[in-house]
Amino acid sequence: MKMLIPRGILTTLLLILLLTTSNAQYRKEIHIPNILGYQTLKCDFHIHTVFSDGDVWPTVRVQEAWAEGLDVIAITDHIEYRPHSVDMEADLNRPYEVAKPLADQMGIILVRGAEITRNMPPGHLTAIFIKNANLLEREDWWEACVEAREQGAFVFWNHPGWKQQQPDTTRWWPEHSRLMNAGILKGIELFSGDEFYPEALRWAQEKNLTILANSNIHAPSSQAYPSPAAKRPISLVFALDKSESAIKAALADNRTAVLFNDTLIGERRFLTPIFISAIEIKNTKLNLKDQDIKYLQIYNNSDIPFRLHQRQPSIGFSCPEEIILPANRTVSIELTGISEEVEQMTTLKMFYEATNLLTKRGEKLPVNIDVPNK
Amino acid sequence: MKMLIPRGILTTLLLILLLTTSNAQYRKEIHIPNILGYQTLKCDFHIHTVFSDGDVWPTVRVQEAWAEGLDVIAITDHIEYRPHSVDMEADLNRPYEVAKPLADQMGIILVRGAEITRNMPPGHLTAIFIKNANLLEREDWWEACVEAREQGAFVFWNHPGWKQQQPDTTRWWPEHSRLMNAGILKGIELFSGDEFYPEALRWAQEKNLTILANSNIHAPSSQAYPSPAAKRPISLVFALDKSESAIKAALADNRTAVLFNDTLIGERRFLTPIFISAIEIKNTKLNLKDQDIKYLQIYNNSDIPFRLHQRQPSIGFSCPEEIILPANRTVSIELTGISEEVEQMTTLKMFYEATNLLTKRGEKLPVNIDVPNK
Amino acid sequence: MKMLIPRGILTTLLLILLLTTSNAQYRKEIHIPNILGYQTLKCDFHIHTVFSDGDVWPTVRVQEAWAEGLDVIAITDHIEYRPHSVDMEADLNRPYEVAKPLADQMGIILVRGAEITRNMPPGHLTAIFIKNANLLEREDWWEACVEAREQGAFVFWNHPGWKQQQPDTTRWWPEHSRLMNAGILKGIELFSGDEFYPEALRWAQEKNLTILANSNIHAPSSQAYPSPAAKRPISLVFALDKSESAIKAALADNRTAVLFNDTLIGERRFLTPIFISAIEIKNTKLNLKDQDIKYLQIYNNSDIPFRLHQRQPSIGFSCPEEIILPANRTVSIELTGISEEVEQMTTLKMFYEATNLLTKRGEKLPVNIDVPNK
Amino acid sequence: MKMLIPRGILTTLLLILLLTTSNAQYRKEIHIPNILGYQTLKCDFHIHTVFSDGDVWPTVRVQEAWAEGLDVIAITDHIEYRPHSVDMEADLNRPYEVAKPLADQMGIILVRGAEITRNMPPGHLTAIFIKNANLLEREDWWEACVEAREQGAFVFWNHPGWKQQQPDTTRWWPEHSRLMNAGILKGIELFSGDEFYPEALRWAQEKNLTILANSNIHAPSSQAYPSPAAKRPISLVFALDKSESAIKAALADNRTAVLFNDTLIGERRFLTPIFISAIEIKNTKLNLKDQDIKYLQIYNNSDIPFRLHQRQPSIGFSCPEEIILPANRTVSIELTGISEEVEQMTTLKMFYEATNLLTKRGEKLPVNIDVPNK
Repeated sequence: MKMLIPRGILTTLLLILLLTTSNAQYRKEIHIPNILGYQTLKCDFHIHTVFSDGDVWPTVRVQEAWAEGLDVIAITDHIEYRPHSVDMEADLNRPYEVAKPLADQMGIILVRGAEITRNMPPGHLTAIFIKNANLLEREDWWEACVEAREQGAFVFWNHPGWKQQQPDTTRWWPEHSRLMNAGILKGIELFSGDEFYPEALRWAQEKNLTILANSNIHAPSSQAYPSPAAKRPISLVFALDKSESAIKAALADNRTAVLFNDTLIGERRFLTPIFISAIEIKNTKLNLKDQDIKYLQIYNNSDIPFRLHQRQPSIGFSCPEEIILPANRTVSIELTGISEEVEQMTTLKMFYEATNLLTKRGEKLPVNIDVPNK
Repeated sequence: MKMLIPRGILTTLLLILLLTTSNAQYRKEIHIPNILGYQTLKCDFHIHTVFSDGDVWPTVRVQEAWAEGLDVIAITDHIEYRPHSVDMEADLNRPYEVAKPLADQMGIILVRGAEITRNMPPGHLTAIFIKNANLLEREDWWEACVEAREQGAFVFWNHPGWKQQQPDTTRWWPEHSRLMNAGILKGIELFSGDEFYPEALRWAQEKNLTILANSNIHAPSSQAYPSPAAKRPISLVFALDKSESAIKAALADNRTAVLFNDTLIGERRFLTPIFISAIEIKNTKLNLKDQDIKYLQIYNNSDIPFRLHQRQPSIGFSCPEEIILPANRTVSIELTGISEEVEQMTTLKMFYEATNLLTKRGEKLPVNIDVPNK
Repeated sequence: MKMLIPRGILTTLLLILLLTTSNAQYRKEIHIPNILGYQTLKCDFHIHTVFSDGDVWPTVRVQEAWAEGLDVIAITDHIEYRPHSVDMEADLNRPYEVAKPLADQMGIILVRGAEITRNMPPGHLTAIFIKNANLLEREDWWEACVEAREQGAFVFWNHPGWKQQQPDTTRWWPEHSRLMNAGILKGIELFSGDEFYPEALRWAQEKNLTILANSNIHAPSSQAYPSPAAKRPISLVFALDKSESAIKAALADNRTAVLFNDTLIGERRFLTPIFISAIEIKNTKLNLKDQDIKYLQIYNNSDIPFRLHQRQPSIGFSCPEEIILPANRTVSIELTGISEEVEQMTTLKMFYEATNLLTKRGEKLPVNIDVPNK
Repeated sequence: MKMLIPRGILTTLLLILLLTTSNAQYRKEIHIPNILGYQTLKCDFHIHTVFSDGDVWPTVRVQEAWAEGLDVIAITDHIEYRPHSVDMEADLNRPYEVAKPLADQMGIILVRGAEITRNMPPGHLTAIFIKNANLLEREDWWEACVEAREQGAFVFWNHPGWKQQQPDTTRWWPEHSRLMNAGILKGIELFSGDEFYPEALRWAQEKNLTILANSNIHAPSSQAYPSPAAKRPISLVFALDKSESAIKAALADNRTAVLFNDTLIGERRFLTPIFISAIEIKNTKLNLKDQDIKYLQIYNNSDIPFRLHQRQPSIGFSCPEEIILPANRTVSIELTGISEEVEQMTTLKMFYEATNLLTKRGEKLPVNIDVPNK
């Protein structure tokens, strides 16, 4: 008789033999293609530490970011909310200063930031690329925002639909228009932690705001997002190079997309090339004929799965109504010839929409797949 | 054709639908039997926070302990080593005070502790059940230890074989004898973090020290011990009830065992009943006959796997040289009748030793399995 | 600096050291409470092998069932559809005969069965507890069914909403009434493989049919249901003992419930005691007072998670609208005192419905949780 | 308070929503670099089905191979051992014929094979690239082998150290020399299923035999090798293209390596380029100076982890004695400048041996890592 060996179980017995290498750290890269000559940087611009109401020391945020495949983070402790102040000193530049040497060592770009934490309106605003967080501590929120602008900050509205501040409706206040008109408010979070704000997507489209997804993390990351399936929300920034200035330029130029729980949202000009670069047809030529069934093999080299729904029938052959292209997997699907003309076709054209890839208009991204046939 | 469905992959696509319940927390119980009228409490007496050189806020240690199935923890920040002191206030009673209200809410027993952190000798010593950590800050280490004793502390030697303090050999110093003779030093760590100290086991046996296994954790627990296979080292305390005084009494009375990476070490009087309580024979009667093969089914209801090696042959039948009883699994093994007398035996006796259960003498625990046959 | 150790990764390096014990097999028990004096048997009554259009040898079905925690299976190869007949002999009693000795050895109850495989109406019917499968091979489907009855079979309708046989609607045919009236058809599958048939639930309630969930498995089980999250659908049978006759009596008496993907469906008389037996309040007394927050800890000792939705407010305190009680976990939830009278209450009463526990009427099961307070 | 969300658990609640796409299958590619102008094909040349003593239908072997990332398989049922013959027809060409159409559809190269199954000597021999398996059924084993040669077969010795045939010693018999001298025996299994045969490695080196690792699988693959950590043994074949003739030429030319449980064995000419192609230094220039610590980041793009042990010290800097490069991960390790000359070095040279990469001589592969410094 053959064995049923529960290897997963048995191996734990051997853990005691494990000699771990000293001081080694391990990083899981996030595979999303670079596009249009830009580098696709993985960023989280909204992160807390013990210096405000977070749970960890600032260096932990760098270790976590590096281990999880991020390129860029901003530590953005609350200016006005510091529940640990009995035990911690008050300097809000310290989280950056404490984390910066390690970030430089690890190759993580650490952006200086802070969260202006006010009642609604205007709610919570994150200012990044600032020079001095302590100067943002003002009684008047408008003055704090002007100070951020004078420091050259990029300011975005955090979790605009947060129930605690807007329990009944999610609205855009005159104060947000005022901030925009003053050249202060330039971005908005679509995802913050586990939450999604559909209104923010509409406003981003209408008002040309830069879209962001951030973790707004307080707990240790490995506690908030236990591996392997769950991952923190991230902002994809399409930057000319991996530098602080290129990231700032990209944010100003609306070159972002957001990713959370395998839903990717962004302008069509970014999403289409990401999809195209991510998939590969593994068959050389399919040679599909009438009444014939062939297996089309598509490899998805990215860490984003794609869920496809057929948006119009193909000519000469039938293909599945739904296709899932899991991350880092090859899928085999059946194509069936249904007319004699299919044999003569050089290319088989398939018409889908990606249901987990949403344009800034909130529409599913149309994607076409061309299969070499003859 | 049938499908190959990689559900693990596909389900991640659905995560976006996940509505998490607010403020809920989840705990994985650790299943190890209570024995001899004692409760088997799962304890970690050596833990750090941002108040010394750890990475997390004290409340995180309570959340982690609760989630991981622990009953008792001590936060034991270094008295003499506080690298965060530029940013943190100096009061070493604060980690306890910050964490205590949450511990009470969660039902975690939080023991007040501190780590006296000195060069070798005497190295690092943890004092638990103290009254005031600040009073342990003395220039002279002996005075610090006497102060701990006066506060009623239980003191144990941490990571006695730590290479950084004893790079070449692991020795017992006269200072440790002096501490023992003064009624101060009563325990010793066999496991500290990922390290095991065989010499400590020998000393514990010779000198009647209470054995402990602790995490000495600095990083977030979920980072240091990613689930599910790896778990922190724990001290098992066999206490009359789940109270601080009962734990203190148990430590004084040597009622502990230590567990790390599925290796359990302790006195035979504790290990034998743990093994006996953990396993169940699922067959009612085996009815083994000569030349017959029967499948014996043994269920291990505990979270500790048992690796068994046959220490002497059985009479009348043969059984495997090696048996693994994985945690929370039933194993089926073959018994073969090899003499005619087996048919008459009421009980089949099997003689093994558990290679991952070590007595305080460092010997593999002998275990016998009696199988009802007739 | 502290380490980020990806243990999951590193341990694979050690697999080469793994010496597996010869011929050992491992079983994961399914933990669902016994209720009302009955044993809760885990059963799959619809399984295929290479003897019809399945992919595996009959003994594999026994190994799989044992490893996955099942108690009872029926191998039910198609009478009329045997695509392997070029290579395989035609005797349909062979799958049972081949598998029976191993089933006896492993303690799996193997029920003799076969699938009468016809166009709609009446579609596919499974007959279990038959005596001779070969005699069911008749040109006329009615004769085959009568033969099954004469052999003492329990007959149920398979996958009644299977699109391939009823592409547009799912209907109950006169032929099914005829089969019922003749005392032949007594059960119906609610789940078959990955599919669920809501109409079948309605018919089962109206016509007093025994409900079943079966895998209808063709592929190797570990391929169809890769661990750990995905598991095959199972029929729970509440039987007086673990014997073929007791199972047959339970089926005749409608004593079943069905479980798939954590959805449990059955009569309220079975579901309520399962829920009650599965949960334990870990707090002794909560001592909740007005304006106070306490953490209620509930342990779910079963392998079925429970998703609870509040169906009416509690008196004197507030509790979460949604609670998830994951399998084998303790959950901590917040209760908040909102009136002075709460302090005087001996018991705190909470009113929920379990959204993944459906009664035979298709309603969510109402569940009450009583918390000792004073 | 922040949440501890066990997502892994919660997501299983949602499985019921899963609509699986019809007939889709998913493949996990095995990432091992192509080298020296060859394609690195992943092959398993020793596989059983129900046609001899295996547990599954031949098409399952194609599905498994495709899903697990293999390129080439041979189904090699026993000629002389067919325990299912009561129920199965006797034609040993059938497994190939049954599986071939699916293999063609999936793009799996299916090699025709059979296992000549004799007592020792010569034990079990696998013949692949045969024309007609039935003709290998001869009373005399020598005649069967000659027949295989006449069909153009490549013949290798299976599990040469199998305890059942050689319980006490593992020896090379005169019969094997005779087979070699007759131009029949050309290869040998180093790994077969879970077993490793060190003697086979020595003989392969001495006698210039082609080394192979095969699963010798009888159970369903997902049962024998539950994901994700455990994978079947595979033979790497370095072929000019992905065709049966190129594979045959590669086997004849000794162009193979073997992989099991992350141990890779093969000639240095193959292993060195695999290692070199698999790793990437992520730092552009390290700029290491005396007394300075820099973090070197190395990415391993392959599915083989590399365990490195320092074989000689570097000049001008120190680096870890042990490095683990997990599959598909970036590792960060510390380099410390220990002399003033390091600042002037253009390249930092590190000298290791890969302890899980063994040459055909059984030696750990020496690997050098050159780090751009200035």
